[in-house]
Amino acid sequence: MQQPSSVIIVGAGLVGSLWAVFLARRGYQVKVYERRPDMRAAGYRGGRSINLAMSERGWKAVEMAGIREQLSKTALPMPGRMMHAVTGDLTFQPYGKEGEAIYSVSRGGLNLALLEIADRFPNVEFFFEHRCVDVDLDLPYITFENMQTGDTHQVEAPLIFGTDGAFSAVRYALQKTDRFQYTQFYLDHGYKELTIPPAADGGYRMDPKALHIWPRGNFMLIALPNADRSFTCTLFLPFEGEVSFEHLKSDADVTAFFRRFFPDTLDLMPTLLEDFKNNPTSSLITVKCRPWQWQNRILLLGDAAHAIVPFYGQGMNAGFEDCTILDGLHDQFGGDWSKIIPHFAAQRVADGDAIAELAQRNFIEMRDLVADPKFLLRKKIAAHLHAQHPDFLPVYSMVTFSNTPYHIALKEDDAQNRLFAQILNLPGIEENWMENPEVERIIRGER
Amino acid sequence: MQQPSSVIIVGAGLVGSLWAVFLARRGYQVKVYERRPDMRAAGYRGGRSINLAMSERGWKAVEMAGIREQLSKTALPMPGRMMHAVTGDLTFQPYGKEGEAIYSVSRGGLNLALLEIADRFPNVEFFFEHRCVDVDLDLPYITFENMQTGDTHQVEAPLIFGTDGAFSAVRYALQKTDRFQYTQFYLDHGYKELTIPPAADGGYRMDPKALHIWPRGNFMLIALPNADRSFTCTLFLPFEGEVSFEHLKSDADVTAFFRRFFPDTLDLMPTLLEDFKNNPTSSLITVKCRPWQWQNRILLLGDAAHAIVPFYGQGMNAGFEDCTILDGLHDQFGGDWSKIIPHFAAQRVADGDAIAELAQRNFIEMRDLVADPKFLLRKKIAAHLHAQHPDFLPVYSMVTFSNTPYHIALKEDDAQNRLFAQILNLPGIEENWMENPEVERIIRGER
Repeated sequence: MQQPSSVIIVGAGLVGSLWAVFLARRGYQVKVYERRPDMRAAGYRGGRSINLAMSERGWKAVEMAGIREQLSKTALPMPGRMMHAVTGDLTFQPYGKEGEAIYSVSRGGLNLALLEIADRFPNVEFFFEHRCVDVDLDLPYITFENMQTGDTHQVEAPLIFGTDGAFSAVRYALQKTDRFQYTQFYLDHGYKELTIPPAADGGYRMDPKALHIWPRGNFMLIALPNADRSFTCTLFLPFEGEVSFEHLKSDADVTAFFRRFFPDTLDLMPTLLEDFKNNPTSSLITVKCRPWQWQNRILLLGDAAHAIVPFYGQGMNAGFEDCTILDGLHDQFGGDWSKIIPHFAAQRVADGDAIAELAQRNFIEMRDLVADPKFLLRKKIAAHLHAQHPDFLPVYSMVTFSNTPYHIALKEDDAQNRLFAQILNLPGIEENWMENPEVERIIRGER
Repeated sequence: MQQPSSVIIVGAGLVGSLWAVFLARRGYQVKVYERRPDMRAAGYRGGRSINLAMSERGWKAVEMAGIREQLSKTALPMPGRMMHAVTGDLTFQPYGKEGEAIYSVSRGGLNLALLEIADRFPNVEFFFEHRCVDVDLDLPYITFENMQTGDTHQVEAPLIFGTDGAFSAVRYALQKTDRFQYTQFYLDHGYKELTIPPAADGGYRMDPKALHIWPRGNFMLIALPNADRSFTCTLFLPFEGEVSFEHLKSDADVTAFFRRFFPDTLDLMPTLLEDFKNNPTSSLITVKCRPWQWQNRILLLGDAAHAIVPFYGQGMNAGFEDCTILDGLHDQFGGDWSKIIPHFAAQRVADGDAIAELAQRNFIEMRDLVADPKFLLRKKIAAHLHAQHPDFLPVYSMVTFSNTPYHIALKEDDAQNRLFAQILNLPGIEENWMENPEVERIIRGER
């Protein structure tokens, strides 16, 4: 079977730009269509979180794209989380072993770097301000609207990759095909970005070597460091209810809310009231669907296939891992897309579902459990068990510092939840967890 | 607030036509747009099941629309189910008490009757072969394409009811609004319609006073009587797998399959092989979404809001009940749609979710459990308990022969499942269920 030599990518976001690099290196003629203007001219427009937590899966992909070193220069290591109690007390929890960290990376900076490296290939062409308006499911065509002229035109598309994000136009086309399973689910919580600017002396106002969390039960505030010595903060809060966005209307409401729940931030956020007014309150979507492919010639990747909530810091990492896995299958099947695409779609969907579930679970953990003594005890016991049984890997490490498939990490999370439900029920466990022989017995039984 | 006097209904299927009658009676100017040709001229085109099981909720609605008597003439009572064993043995199970039955009704005949009665109102206008292509979410407009001319035109639409079915265009517009929860889920089973024609002497080939079922574990065949002395059969079978549609390719495959699993039907279905070849294998979708409304002026009803699988015979009944409930709210709120619509959407969605769940559970029951001795024992005990405790109503009766909200029926189903899990575990229950005092004790404890 003759293989297509030209490829359409819909969406020049993080995953689309990275995937263009992978394909360009293999010699494909790559055309990338993007609804938004070229950010290299227009500047990056936020709306979505402006920094990301890069971890192992992300690094692996950018290394293969040849830009690991370049990105490393501005990535800021966060070896643990710093929890802020209402009293202002700080507790630091390392994420992994000595030397392990997640990295705060600028979304805009990363996207720009990926666009630039892709654009250096003579066989890659970008079309900005081009909106996908139709995907022909019978014939290999796709239709774009040039948003500057209003003209639409059809492009031949023997091979289409839909990397157009959580609200993917390519996926909307597939959604209407028979037996397409599809769920979009919004959390009851929204988020709003706020900022902690650099201090007067140009330094950071908090320790930059941590992801800061203010866990408050049903809601939380987080902050990630930026290279310019500022922090980007995100408030996650229910849209409606007793303590919620709907009750934060006036400046007085906002000030009272922060004074009550995040008093140590008031001095750090001089522009709080303006930011709160000017920045949108955004929603948090999870998308699950299957199959991710159509007739071995249209494939969804990244958020278009598996949009997840941000609480595991895995959205971009999962999308980048799609690229490395797909690239590996290209070798395995000698470039035969009629094998690569169905194989990828069938194999990878369980990982997409798994990281969606893990990300939702981690929201509970971050906002709620990190301030719970039982949870802290569990963390201590887990670290102890990991030291004694090296194969007893914390799930967070498996997801963040390894390339273990997400669906295996989810199974391990289920197993460890059952395990700790038993262990934390042992009498006197708060005191005797180090030497309690029952702990060993339970572990042997469960594993 | 001024109330709109003109109303748009998108979709002239069962629910759209019925709802047009309800609105016409209240004096609204009603415009009904339908994608398909006028079935009064074009004839009814199948594709979807051509007979339906009408039960209490449906009858209540058609009574309010003034056509109960007319429909009763051709509706065929089915007071129970007739189970066909592979051996050909028959077992009859009544659905309810003496005098209670569900009714086999022709989908085409019912739709025609509803169209005709709606069309008699001078304030109702139908527009066939008009496809909804856009719903303006900001301004009160909706755009239709005249499918004969290809022209599109905008219609003022202060009030829109989306009754355009499981693949609703109105719902696709709402799906892209922020925080719209949406799931479409397909079963692994498909279905194919077959037919048992009248006997040579013009009579029925089987007892017409029953819904016939051939339960075979993971799949089943059913048959409903028609007024012309034929039966419409539906085969529900997995698309893929060991015993599945994918393995029924040749006439020999089909014959061998029916000989093995449904031997008593071979003589009844002289056109089996043609029907099997000519009729499509269709899929079974469940749709759940919320909110069903947009800005108090666009409301989804029927399958557009809550498409369900057919195994409880409640799809049409649920859609018709939407109309009676909405009509009741019209009285309650004095015709103030800004109150009626959000109230209906908030209250009714739990019923939509509940009947979707009950319908999926009933598939397991029909195909699997009706042939299971434990299930038959449970049915006997349930009937006995119902006789002794009149408030212990079987869930089937609650759904089929009452107007109890579906979400209450689902709760009752959960409770009875817990109850019978205990009762059927009692030692010797197969023999002593009539006089076992433990049964009474369990019931008192659970209720």
